[in-house]
Amino acid sequence: MQIQPLRGTRSLYPKEMRERNTLLNACRTILERAGYEEYEAPVLEPMALYEAKSSAEIIERQSYVFTDRGGEKIVVRPELTPSFARMVANKQGELPPLIRWFSFADCWRYERPQKGRTRNFLQINVDFLGSDTGEADVEAIDLALSMLQAIGIDMRNVSMRVNDRKLFDVTCQTLAIAIEKKGQFLTLLDERDKLTQEEFLTKLQTINPELNCTDLAVIDNVQPSERLLAVIASVQKLGWTQLVYDPNLIRGFSYYTGIVFEVVETSGSFRRAVFGGGRYDNLLEAVGGKPMSGIGFAVSDVALFAALEAQEKSVAVDQPVKTLIIPLTNNEAPVAIDVARRLRTKGNTAILAIPPYELKKQLTMANRLGASEVVIVAPEELKTGNVIVKNMTTGEQRRVRVSDL
Amino acid sequence: MQIQPLRGTRSLYPKEMRERNTLLNACRTILERAGYEEYEAPVLEPMALYEAKSSAEIIERQSYVFTDRGGEKIVVRPELTPSFARMVANKQGELPPLIRWFSFADCWRYERPQKGRTRNFLQINVDFLGSDTGEADVEAIDLALSMLQAIGIDMRNVSMRVNDRKLFDVTCQTLAIAIEKKGQFLTLLDERDKLTQEEFLTKLQTINPELNCTDLAVIDNVQPSERLLAVIASVQKLGWTQLVYDPNLIRGFSYYTGIVFEVVETSGSFRRAVFGGGRYDNLLEAVGGKPMSGIGFAVSDVALFAALEAQEKSVAVDQPVKTLIIPLTNNEAPVAIDVARRLRTKGNTAILAIPPYELKKQLTMANRLGASEVVIVAPEELKTGNVIVKNMTTGEQRRVRVSDL
Repeated sequence: MQIQPLRGTRSLYPKEMRERNTLLNACRTILERAGYEEYEAPVLEPMALYEAKSSAEIIERQSYVFTDRGGEKIVVRPELTPSFARMVANKQGELPPLIRWFSFADCWRYERPQKGRTRNFLQINVDFLGSDTGEADVEAIDLALSMLQAIGIDMRNVSMRVNDRKLFDVTCQTLAIAIEKKGQFLTLLDERDKLTQEEFLTKLQTINPELNCTDLAVIDNVQPSERLLAVIASVQKLGWTQLVYDPNLIRGFSYYTGIVFEVVETSGSFRRAVFGGGRYDNLLEAVGGKPMSGIGFAVSDVALFAALEAQEKSVAVDQPVKTLIIPLTNNEAPVAIDVARRLRTKGNTAILAIPPYELKKQLTMANRLGASEVVIVAPEELKTGNVIVKNMTTGEQRRVRVSDL
Repeated sequence: MQIQPLRGTRSLYPKEMRERNTLLNACRTILERAGYEEYEAPVLEPMALYEAKSSAEIIERQSYVFTDRGGEKIVVRPELTPSFARMVANKQGELPPLIRWFSFADCWRYERPQKGRTRNFLQINVDFLGSDTGEADVEAIDLALSMLQAIGIDMRNVSMRVNDRKLFDVTCQTLAIAIEKKGQFLTLLDERDKLTQEEFLTKLQTINPELNCTDLAVIDNVQPSERLLAVIASVQKLGWTQLVYDPNLIRGFSYYTGIVFEVVETSGSFRRAVFGGGRYDNLLEAVGGKPMSGIGFAVSDVALFAALEAQEKSVAVDQPVKTLIIPLTNNEAPVAIDVARRLRTKGNTAILAIPPYELKKQLTMANRLGASEVVIVAPEELKTGNVIVKNMTTGEQRRVRVSDL
């Protein structure tokens, strides 16, 4: 019986891996050119890192949690932000006042597998720590949209909504929502799309029984702050006119304290959030660091591929030019290795044929490998220091000196 | 209180990450140019994949094993080879007859943390499946040594030992070792370095009580096979004269059936194996696939860095040329963004200054960032469409038109 992978997990075969590497490299280029530096955190972290610092739903219901041989409670990370905060807190004294970092992080969630969602995925995490300014907000949003553009997304079918968690705090005050009920209220607002007006009101009354339908106007008529309006204007001036204010945008993570944003691909049926992010003020303190305001966003490789698919696009992979080196007998094998080494030193992909050295079978193999050329090391030609180079597309053959390759 | 990472785990900060990426890219170049393709398997796999297919010691004593929410027994992979075999078996019908694959795989072992060993490490796994020939053996060994050379290791202080598991089978026959005792005998041979001759004999007698000290000669005088001698000769002809036959080389993994090899860095005190690998005939069948002979090897990034350190070498990282773009006031900020975008399009790293825009502080920041140049966007110069470009090494300043940047 064949052993299968764990249900809902993903293995990347070479073709998919090439596409994924191409996608990541496009993102990496955008980030590095803006001065962002790559880091890496372990995929296993202590449970303490997530307690009260992440989304309760994700940790309690969707995380792989276990106890190791030493009795330590361990989480297979469902997201990277807490690890990022921990790494900064652990070396805060040595790090510069502005931190622009990114990571491509393997993350795991025990969710029901479905189209466009796998239990393991790579999360691209981007964070800018140390500046609570609208300029930093603009930079983060610009990067998120630039990455989408760089991977080949048609930006006309991308919308982006922003909101500010500070406005939510004001709403809580106006509606006399008790502090201990704020989390519940946040979750309710996040779910509002899925509820009728009546259902929403009924649930709202479990949070504050005094509220009635006239209070819904308070929620619906929240006005954006001046800072939010300035950020929106700046981002639009950069050409990203798809950015709009949306008082109903919440985002699940409890650590957001300022601007929150979400990017959605709007063509076709895939309308899930692609990128999401926001500003957090208290995350560093929560992991034992000194306070630092930051803004960050994340996107999974799975979501990026789904967005491309919704636009009926694929990743354009640069295929290397491949050459298969075929000795005709064992006697020519050492020269074949020498030829391969010469070509590799010049940056070419040179694959060595493996016995049996039957030319016809080797030429079939060359086609299967997608080789554009083969080098045939034949005894007769070798006597004069030559090999035969055959173009696999045209079939044309020519004699070339080994030393001229 | 600061939250710490799990004991013995490693987090890579940007400087270390740049070094690690440089190291991996050097290895990737060697592998891709030889026609090897990258793949990726999930870090969590079902327990069934490891049962009887890996090193018993590693799975029983050193692996992170747990049960997920669905009751499935899961392993955080301690090595990649079983996953590689599973991936091939799962799609064997669609894959070509020769498979040259590699992966950079996050692996975990619950070991006592010590210098040059962390609980999480990246394992570079290289496999060549589908040809049981000496030529494939030579290719694998050549690649392992070429990778070491490519990362900057002085190959004069590298030794490599090879042996053949088939010779071990002959020894078992000669010494009348029962089939069910072969694993125990293998482990004993692997530990022989750490034992006195007497201790070794005593343990040998628990495997076959009939044996005495004259039988030790059988173990010590195993002659290499013709194939092994031919492989050694071919590899030495490639310039790798450090390769020697060692009848005492065993390698822990039970799945090896043919040639086994090990690369050791010999300068200084670090003499642990860097690379290790070998040929396996039964791995594909063990995971439910059709038989295919393969040869593979692995090395961890931790071991490669330790080998470099033993030679008092470090990885030469290419630092990108960085420019900090500084607007003098908020009014010039939009032009600063435009300048940054122009530079980034041309492949430069252009970092945007963030308020407060005090020139002196921003220049200090530029030095801290390692910026070689700054672009100052000043109101006066901007009137004529110019910005100031300041070289941070020489202090020299010049006026440049924005459109000429």
